[in-house]
Amino acid sequence: MECDPIGTAHTPFETTSEAPRQGFHEDAAGVVELVPAAREGLTGFDADRVVVVWWADRADRSVLTLARDPERGVFTSRSPARPNPVCISECRVDAVDAEAGRLDLRGVDMADGSPVIDLKATVDVQCWTDDST
Amino acid sequence: MECDPIGTAHTPFETTSEAPRQGFHEDAAGVVELVPAAREGLTGFDADRVVVVWWADRADRSVLTLARDPERGVFTSRSPARPNPVCISECRVDAVDAEAGRLDLRGVDMADGSPVIDLKATVDVQCWTDDST
Repeated sequence: MECDPIGTAHTPFETTSEAPRQGFHEDAAGVVELVPAAREGLTGFDADRVVVVWWADRADRSVLTLARDPERGVFTSRSPARPNPVCISECRVDAVDAEAGRLDLRGVDMADGSPVIDLKATVDVQCWTDDST
Repeated sequence: MECDPIGTAHTPFETTSEAPRQGFHEDAAGVVELVPAAREGLTGFDADRVVVVWWADRADRSVLTLARDPERGVFTSRSPARPNPVCISECRVDAVDAEAGRLDLRGVDMADGSPVIDLKATVDVQCWTDDST
């Protein structure tokens, strides 16, 4: 299954290990910039929060247990090191420019320059929207 | 970016459109079965909930707006139709057999037979675990 990047994450974090653990540094600001071909997908976007699905392209895909605790498998964790380094970050939306394909976000934890593969608007921090049609 | 399936979802839903909207039919039961090569990743798994990341392999990847409302882009929704049909389903965990690579789940909405590309344990319905190391 081949994923094509729909955009790129711009954040203050050079590497994934520098990124804050989720829930900390809620104010870290970042930007997701979509490629022109994907921008139409932002039409009518007005959500306060968004799930950013991104690809940790520097992660070690060969490991199945955690380096710091070999008694725990990678699926017990959110470490980017895993067979398919698909990461999920729920962020607050500060501003959207659908035409420019730009989202200004808060609460980011993506590594700078990571490919973004999907975006899903959310209704609030507890509950996703119900559009699985 | 190439994703390799780590397993398969077995659910009562033949197609994605039959699957319940999230939050409905919370009791729908399903199973995720991991391929032998990925099973070690379940070591020590004891969470009550899990985020199942799966690939909607029958979804239309060519659309950027919703069929039922062209004023809304796919990124405003959770429709599986989108450039990269990566879907996210948070499920309750009824039982885990790490050795057999099997998770018995409730609250599934995956289409039967869909490839699973990742699993992430969660601490509860509101809050994901903090293992972004």
